[in-house]
Amino acid sequence: MRVGVIGGGQLARMMIPAAVELGIELRVLAEAEGSSARLAATAVGDYTDAGTVLAFAREVDVVTFDHEHVPQEVLAALIEEGIAVRPGPHALRFAQDKLAMRERLTELGVPVPLWARAASVDDVAAFLADAGGRAVAKTPRGGYDGKGVRVISSPDEAADWLAAGPVLLEELVGFRRELAQLVARRPSGELVAWPVVETVQRGGVCAEVFAPAPGATARVEEIAEQIARTVAEGLDVSGVLAVELFETDDERVLVNELAMRPHNSGHWTQDGAVTSQFEQHLRAVLDLPLGDPAPRAEVSVMVNILGGPADGDLLGRLPGALADQPGAKVHTYGKQPRPGRKVGHVNASGSELEDVLVRARAAASFFQD
Amino acid sequence: MRVGVIGGGQLARMMIPAAVELGIELRVLAEAEGSSARLAATAVGDYTDAGTVLAFAREVDVVTFDHEHVPQEVLAALIEEGIAVRPGPHALRFAQDKLAMRERLTELGVPVPLWARAASVDDVAAFLADAGGRAVAKTPRGGYDGKGVRVISSPDEAADWLAAGPVLLEELVGFRRELAQLVARRPSGELVAWPVVETVQRGGVCAEVFAPAPGATARVEEIAEQIARTVAEGLDVSGVLAVELFETDDERVLVNELAMRPHNSGHWTQDGAVTSQFEQHLRAVLDLPLGDPAPRAEVSVMVNILGGPADGDLLGRLPGALADQPGAKVHTYGKQPRPGRKVGHVNASGSELEDVLVRARAAASFFQD
Repeated sequence: MRVGVIGGGQLARMMIPAAVELGIELRVLAEAEGSSARLAATAVGDYTDAGTVLAFAREVDVVTFDHEHVPQEVLAALIEEGIAVRPGPHALRFAQDKLAMRERLTELGVPVPLWARAASVDDVAAFLADAGGRAVAKTPRGGYDGKGVRVISSPDEAADWLAAGPVLLEELVGFRRELAQLVARRPSGELVAWPVVETVQRGGVCAEVFAPAPGATARVEEIAEQIARTVAEGLDVSGVLAVELFETDDERVLVNELAMRPHNSGHWTQDGAVTSQFEQHLRAVLDLPLGDPAPRAEVSVMVNILGGPADGDLLGRLPGALADQPGAKVHTYGKQPRPGRKVGHVNASGSELEDVLVRARAAASFFQD
Repeated sequence: MRVGVIGGGQLARMMIPAAVELGIELRVLAEAEGSSARLAATAVGDYTDAGTVLAFAREVDVVTFDHEHVPQEVLAALIEEGIAVRPGPHALRFAQDKLAMRERLTELGVPVPLWARAASVDDVAAFLADAGGRAVAKTPRGGYDGKGVRVISSPDEAADWLAAGPVLLEELVGFRRELAQLVARRPSGELVAWPVVETVQRGGVCAEVFAPAPGATARVEEIAEQIARTVAEGLDVSGVLAVELFETDDERVLVNELAMRPHNSGHWTQDGAVTSQFEQHLRAVLDLPLGDPAPRAEVSVMVNILGGPADGDLLGRLPGALADQPGAKVHTYGKQPRPGRKVGHVNASGSELEDVLVRARAAASFFQD
């Protein structure tokens, strides 16, 4: 059993332990030498080049992804050759294009913020008038970790993006917090859901995750799971699907973003769930029966290590962190520290959120100046 | 941080996930191409050849082991060059030579079965007379998984071994069960202990492990931990030390065997403890602070997959096993199935031994005919 992953980032890297344990061969097509997933990198090349990707894909049983940026024409070339691609291009399209995603979710009846496709400054002006004078503008493609997202209060502020094509506009949702619902689905249809989690973003980047979402009502849990199920089935997703959600003060749950791959909001599952999102993703794309997503502890917390130490010596901080927090699970990604860059995370589990959070934050703090 | 492991077996393989997670570079000197630890194998060569081992060892920060068979003269060459070797040759000597081990444990006051060094048939006859007519004979070197061990009732039965050198004789201990106590110790002296476990052997090979040892009294737990601590400190062990023990009907605890590396009796820690024996071993040999050895569940069980299916297609059994037991953690070693060979294991955790055992056995049964 051979899984090929396109992209050599930390998500591909974190599939390695799960593959080694089950006995699955993992092969990675990395962007460059020295990638985060270098241990499993059997090829280095350009994922936008069909020839490169085809040569890699012919040697594996199924192709999956570290990111959603492989162009549709490259994916089409794989399908043409009969290569199993999971999630498939028909699903990935919605993770690649936020306008297409909003259209499809609206068709599926999934609750989303009020939105519009704006092709001109006039479209923006009209939406701003409807939405109370402020809106979130997003480029349909290429945005992540806060990039390609802007809060605007005048049409001029979206003019540069409009020059390149249509822009997604969304109402500014008055949310009380952000949630994420992860599910995994295999081609034969089996679907499992982890508990809904709370995510804390700072500067548009995920900073912390609390699992399960503290104090979530049964109704919110049910809606979140139902939304993710509807999306996974409606978009025919294979593998892990992460649905980022807003929870409003009046207990409405709205879809913010989607990712069709393991996701930062699911890193807690490595140490906090019976089956991690990385193992589950491999099982799902291989169409193997899915594992138990149950939590291993009452509470798990994930704290990202963003940036790392200024001197660049991330591992030099291990002794301090491990001595201070013997129960914390430290994960580093083999990446060079750089301001704002995700270079690792810490998981911790226990019975009390406050205690677990203090421990996870304490361990993570050693890796930052 | 670079750890070099001599030997490419499943113990080296199972260090890979822990290394990837922490961000430690693992390099393996394997015996042959296609080893269990092939993903991390950066060299293939003969571990009895000092030149081969030195060339490998010069590129890492510390050398450790998948097995105890590296000759003392090779280890001495590493030490001579100032290479960190953990556990060191002075400790490994006692894992390599059962007679030396028995002598040292006796000096340390650690309880061991009645034993003798027999250099002749007359020595054997004398011991048999003292020990009630039956004894366990062991070759001092090279025995494992039931090899090099024999129950004898006449001196002739040890004659072939005596021709090659002295033999270890031990009383046949009337034990009610076998236990194993794992500890990890780092060069700076810190030591942590996992709970004592019960091991079930079949045909001299570990078949199942129950963690913690069901119904172990506080006294037995304390003695087991104290024995392991005395051995680890007395022999100056770095890394994981496994002490195999007999528990007698009258609650005595006697040392059977030692291993200075991760051990089959500790595989449950991968999924059942906050810190696995593989992560702990890496931390210990790098002299990093040790992790919390606390169990993650009331009960964990490990069931070995011995032999595998007759058709050799171990992974072909995954779908059945995973569908039947979604909560079981299946580990396979990338080894070709062969009668009696350890090719994988299943871990399961929960709150009731009987339930957990049924689940682990059910999953493991899919991998055997």
